[in-house]
Amino acid sequence: MPGEFGLIAKYFARPTPSAVLGPGDDCALIQPSPGKQLAVTTDMLVAGVHFLPDTDPGRLGWKALAVNLSDLAAMGATPRWVTLAGALPAVDEAWIAAFAEGFFGCAREYGVDVIGGDTTRGPLNLCITAIGEVDPGRALRRDGAKPGDEIWVSGRPGLAALGLAHLQGKVKLPEPWPRLCVAALEKPRPRVALGQALTGIASAAIDVSDGLLADLAHIGERSGCAAAVRLVQLPQLRDLAGSGDHYDADLRRLALDCQLAGGDDYELVFTVPAALHTQLGAIAARLELPLWCIGEMVDGDAGTVTVFDPDDQPVDIARKGYDHFGQ
Amino acid sequence: MPGEFGLIAKYFARPTPSAVLGPGDDCALIQPSPGKQLAVTTDMLVAGVHFLPDTDPGRLGWKALAVNLSDLAAMGATPRWVTLAGALPAVDEAWIAAFAEGFFGCAREYGVDVIGGDTTRGPLNLCITAIGEVDPGRALRRDGAKPGDEIWVSGRPGLAALGLAHLQGKVKLPEPWPRLCVAALEKPRPRVALGQALTGIASAAIDVSDGLLADLAHIGERSGCAAAVRLVQLPQLRDLAGSGDHYDADLRRLALDCQLAGGDDYELVFTVPAALHTQLGAIAARLELPLWCIGEMVDGDAGTVTVFDPDDQPVDIARKGYDHFGQ
Repeated sequence: MPGEFGLIAKYFARPTPSAVLGPGDDCALIQPSPGKQLAVTTDMLVAGVHFLPDTDPGRLGWKALAVNLSDLAAMGATPRWVTLAGALPAVDEAWIAAFAEGFFGCAREYGVDVIGGDTTRGPLNLCITAIGEVDPGRALRRDGAKPGDEIWVSGRPGLAALGLAHLQGKVKLPEPWPRLCVAALEKPRPRVALGQALTGIASAAIDVSDGLLADLAHIGERSGCAAAVRLVQLPQLRDLAGSGDHYDADLRRLALDCQLAGGDDYELVFTVPAALHTQLGAIAARLELPLWCIGEMVDGDAGTVTVFDPDDQPVDIARKGYDHFGQ
Repeated sequence: MPGEFGLIAKYFARPTPSAVLGPGDDCALIQPSPGKQLAVTTDMLVAGVHFLPDTDPGRLGWKALAVNLSDLAAMGATPRWVTLAGALPAVDEAWIAAFAEGFFGCAREYGVDVIGGDTTRGPLNLCITAIGEVDPGRALRRDGAKPGDEIWVSGRPGLAALGLAHLQGKVKLPEPWPRLCVAALEKPRPRVALGQALTGIASAAIDVSDGLLADLAHIGERSGCAAAVRLVQLPQLRDLAGSGDHYDADLRRLALDCQLAGGDDYELVFTVPAALHTQLGAIAARLELPLWCIGEMVDGDAGTVTVFDPDDQPVDIARKGYDHFGQ
């Protein structure tokens, strides 16, 4: 299949200035920076499971890489190198060209080199391994949160799930939300700069891929404590639902569902010792990225997350109720 | 799917003494040895393309890892860490347990830690990324061969293809060859120690995955020279075809086909400056692994491989003739 391999080389063999040796040999060769630790993550994305087979290939290319860089961001690591393996059911040059454009667009934006990969025929499947660098002992793990630490989240989690509901015709979002929410879904921005800024400050971190409450629960599970989230402190999306005569209670409820349980946002949720509270404002200002203190870690069963209403009463959040936005 | 993830954790979350942080966080963390370069390779194996869906899962587990370690061996790198991503059509505990046994059996034997991965539903697909260490400037690349360098190969390439033909009923091998050939096919031994021994000696190297001539051609392509292979210098398999009244000319031809073009052996083919010839004997003795000098690199069109018969006449090897043993 020389034609096929020629096509792959045409679109995927690009200069790899950060590698000692790029694609084309048995292995790629890289030279880690002296003293750094490496953060390594792998994600496999399957057509029909993680994305629809007819997903726009350019957006798929961006997102496939972005979700891996988000894992590096959640460790506070600097993205450096990635490998891409893919099974394709057929050779479709237009599809490959568009996918490569999206993938390398994301690679360029975040400064990573695509050092190697593998291509084969088979049901559509993409597997990416991303490698980043972090100073020893500075990585943001999930297991360092302590009772009393504040819980913070970046950006506006929930937009991606709202965008999905909009695209699926389950809701009609008012302007200008469709564009914002669909962009959050289709072109997520891994919070790499935020992760780096949080090394030495955050006690634990994770990216929001499954949903805010579910991912926060992972921090609690690994850290051996519970979490209290206060509805009133969540990022404000109230203008989304209108006001006065135009207030849409159904949309408000949907937005809250998406905030708490919508996946696919790739914001960071992290914990910070209360004594460092003021540093977060400076980081938010420097990165021009809103950061919200949404609650605190507490003593309790590991991984339990309790949501409190404005009257400080626990809200009954049945997590299964959010499955319709799940993967 | 907590039951599913519980199963994965049960079989795949094992101690990772060589990692700073193993599975369970956004990324694994590893600390490369000071000054080392890293060799990185990725392979994707698809059911129905690279293996039959009903392949014994234990053998599949071994081989899936072994083929990646073979790529590290071909660079002269020391295997250290791997990630494993897999799509499975269904949860079959017996299959997962047997696959894990084969995979971790290979990992133990070659001293690598499985530092992370990903599991999802989907058509059966395995994607492995392996990372090894090598001293700067010492990696065995494909592009360093020069006219005059000797061409060497390890072990007895062709056995795996003979084993496949035997299993497919295309040939009935005499004793004791079935066991040897099927083992070469199902449980290849990556030539890690050989690759390490060749750093500083071999000018180029590659592992035999596609077939001896095809992989040797890759060295020529990247090195900008041609190759001359002498049939009389190939590893001797003549006892395979019997002798005298029992000589089986068809089997002899098949064995030669498999030697030259059979894939899946994972022996190393490499080039060595003629002045270093005598060092190869010492390496072979130390590793108890036969090494064969089968020809030499020559001036000529990059990637051309010419095979010479015992009378020094070029043999017309139509490579497409070997496709029936190909992948």
